[in-house]
Amino acid sequence: MVRGRISRLSVRDVRFPTSLGGHGADAMHTDPDYSAAYVVIETDAEDGIKGCGITFTLGKGTEVVVCAVNALAHHVLNKDLKDIVGDFRGFYRQLTSDGQLRWIGPEKGVVHLATAAVLNAVWDLWAKQEGKPVWKLLVDMDPRMLVSCIDFRYITDVLTEEDALEKQMLAQGYPAYTTSCAWLGYSDDTLKQLCAQALKDGWTRFKVKVGADLQDDMRRCQIIRDMIGPEKTLSLFLQMMDANQRWDVPEAVEWMSKLAKFKPLWIEEPTSPDDILGHATISKALVPLGIGIATGEQCHNRVIFKQLLQAKALQFLQIDSCRLGSVNENLSVLLMAKKFEIPVCPHAGGVGLCELVQHLIIFDYISVSASLENRVCEYVDHLHEHFKYPVMIQRASYMPPKDPGYSTEMKEESVKKHQYPDGEVWKKLLPAQEN
Amino acid sequence: MVRGRISRLSVRDVRFPTSLGGHGADAMHTDPDYSAAYVVIETDAEDGIKGCGITFTLGKGTEVVVCAVNALAHHVLNKDLKDIVGDFRGFYRQLTSDGQLRWIGPEKGVVHLATAAVLNAVWDLWAKQEGKPVWKLLVDMDPRMLVSCIDFRYITDVLTEEDALEKQMLAQGYPAYTTSCAWLGYSDDTLKQLCAQALKDGWTRFKVKVGADLQDDMRRCQIIRDMIGPEKTLSLFLQMMDANQRWDVPEAVEWMSKLAKFKPLWIEEPTSPDDILGHATISKALVPLGIGIATGEQCHNRVIFKQLLQAKALQFLQIDSCRLGSVNENLSVLLMAKKFEIPVCPHAGGVGLCELVQHLIIFDYISVSASLENRVCEYVDHLHEHFKYPVMIQRASYMPPKDPGYSTEMKEESVKKHQYPDGEVWKKLLPAQEN
Repeated sequence: MVRGRISRLSVRDVRFPTSLGGHGADAMHTDPDYSAAYVVIETDAEDGIKGCGITFTLGKGTEVVVCAVNALAHHVLNKDLKDIVGDFRGFYRQLTSDGQLRWIGPEKGVVHLATAAVLNAVWDLWAKQEGKPVWKLLVDMDPRMLVSCIDFRYITDVLTEEDALEKQMLAQGYPAYTTSCAWLGYSDDTLKQLCAQALKDGWTRFKVKVGADLQDDMRRCQIIRDMIGPEKTLSLFLQMMDANQRWDVPEAVEWMSKLAKFKPLWIEEPTSPDDILGHATISKALVPLGIGIATGEQCHNRVIFKQLLQAKALQFLQIDSCRLGSVNENLSVLLMAKKFEIPVCPHAGGVGLCELVQHLIIFDYISVSASLENRVCEYVDHLHEHFKYPVMIQRASYMPPKDPGYSTEMKEESVKKHQYPDGEVWKKLLPAQEN
Repeated sequence: MVRGRISRLSVRDVRFPTSLGGHGADAMHTDPDYSAAYVVIETDAEDGIKGCGITFTLGKGTEVVVCAVNALAHHVLNKDLKDIVGDFRGFYRQLTSDGQLRWIGPEKGVVHLATAAVLNAVWDLWAKQEGKPVWKLLVDMDPRMLVSCIDFRYITDVLTEEDALEKQMLAQGYPAYTTSCAWLGYSDDTLKQLCAQALKDGWTRFKVKVGADLQDDMRRCQIIRDMIGPEKTLSLFLQMMDANQRWDVPEAVEWMSKLAKFKPLWIEEPTSPDDILGHATISKALVPLGIGIATGEQCHNRVIFKQLLQAKALQFLQIDSCRLGSVNENLSVLLMAKKFEIPVCPHAGGVGLCELVQHLIIFDYISVSASLENRVCEYVDHLHEHFKYPVMIQRASYMPPKDPGYSTEMKEESVKKHQYPDGEVWKKLLPAQEN
């Protein structure tokens, strides 16, 4: 089935000027332009199938990730796809452990984002060749093959290959929550209006950005609580809060103690994503108040997730499809979460993150966790129109995608228009911004 | 004193083909070409003084760091140096917390290396304008000014500004150890010969690379132990070991239990630099065998160091002058190490790392730790000839540099020759490597 030699890799800097509308703003990222390093790989198989991969960025710096993808390209070019997926662990190790390149990571930041973009393209290509969406490719895969995609380096103290094989289970739309209503850049009126519309559309779980100003937070959380009703977090009507790393450890505890009365299910990213012990301290203080800790969207690799689990530092684990090393590394995290019995509630939104992560979470449900308890996947209603196979939401749930691949492919027209700095959109915007 | 507006920033990709001689090889980095992203900033002050900054890399990927420096350049250009150093914490925060750019870090990997290179240039410029070496600029600085250079974000749970002020002490060459003799790429004969010569030159402390093959390690460690004598680690004759992240946690304990009989003072980087809890586990197992844990050269920011200290995960802390955010972030780590009473034994070698870190360690001795007990700074005898103010070693000790600046300035001729890929050295080598 798997065929062809990788004959071409291209990477483009695609940016959407979302900051113009205040979309995506939070306490730390005040003016994001949702962007992507967009990788396309082609083979000599003459079947016309291309693998598309992205990693998500916030505008500036996308060119640095593009540069890193080019630095990785020689590991992919002229390789048979069969050899790549036949020894996927070895290929993963090659990408992440290049003796020279690993110094500028290792397995973190720019090079790891670039690794994700490249590997996402490989998974898309593989799944398209098999004629299956990625989640189905994973679900159907022989467990030994599945486990052979994972690099267990640095996590064998909590998860070994034998462990992983035992975790294989089977069971069978995935519940979603929305972050679209309460960006920090929105006025109270916009917040109310979007929230009312979302309730009408069947949404029951809402996330609000906090952390910039306590009085603002209290007012905004009250608005949402008023609109969704007074129920406690275990009801269907949920409120989550997200500080985007704004606080130091003592500050997080203090601030959230004041927001506890709005009964959030979780506080997300209360402090530095690197601070495992800090999250454990915050968790110890807030769990008795009924608030869980969620983090992961900026956790840079499996080693950080391993420790967050070991230290009991989180109650909800948020994988990211574009920061970890693609499906391969996310598999290891899903399996560790299962072992520690922590629900996985992925980070999504951005550009394409919903499209990609739905494959992982549906796989998690069918083959790993077999549970929806306390599980919910983020959803943000932006930029889906630029994808060839956009996410399908029905009754506030992700419907399993049916098209082959990883849902990563963008419309060529969208890419051309938003390519930075030469696309039509930026050609118009850049001179205006310079004035 | 401080004068001028930054009018120009240039950055170059400088690589030395050290892999040709096996220099620098270890269990994970088998063919490093010691390299640097080399930043030069100029002002409009018409005094001809330039600030030079580097960050260290291993060859491939240096172009990615160069790209990231260019992405940061707009934060520096057209700023008055007075305004930068007058609110150095604010400037540091601006570089590391850009709302768009921080996504591709944050404060780690490529963008943080680039931050280090830029800030190293600022410190060099400042010290040169003051006519002092950086260590002296720091020692002479008013404690309030010194503390105002530090961004305490994410570390206030263990160190506050008030704490930091209390740590200011005063006392008055810094002892070094050598890594030049026992790279993994050297034969036993080369090892013996270099070790004999080093003993003759007054070196008494030797580091050996381990982790690729246990039998090889045992033979090489025996050679060194035989040459330096049977004394235990507390004597002047010391042996350190360095695994460069080769092992998983259980493997590290097992492997080092077998090397314990060679009485190493420490095992360095036994596992992933991100694995705080893993280091704590290894430390718990090996300290009873008389082996300390050392790590830091790839710890990407102060948050990781904070946790290593909190978790009692290391006995020797190895700062790096080019991975952390320059003097500013290193100051916070020196102060935390003091608070936890852990000796700082910097990582050095590479390109220019000895030149830079000597300023930090001499400052640490004079103003923070006031102790040489269990303290020793790495030294590697490579590439110093390319620097305008090379490090001075006498009787196996770093002699305090006297020239103004951060000792970061390279000889223009060296830069030109080694610029990648167009310098004379690479123009000759690249076609040869392609064949």
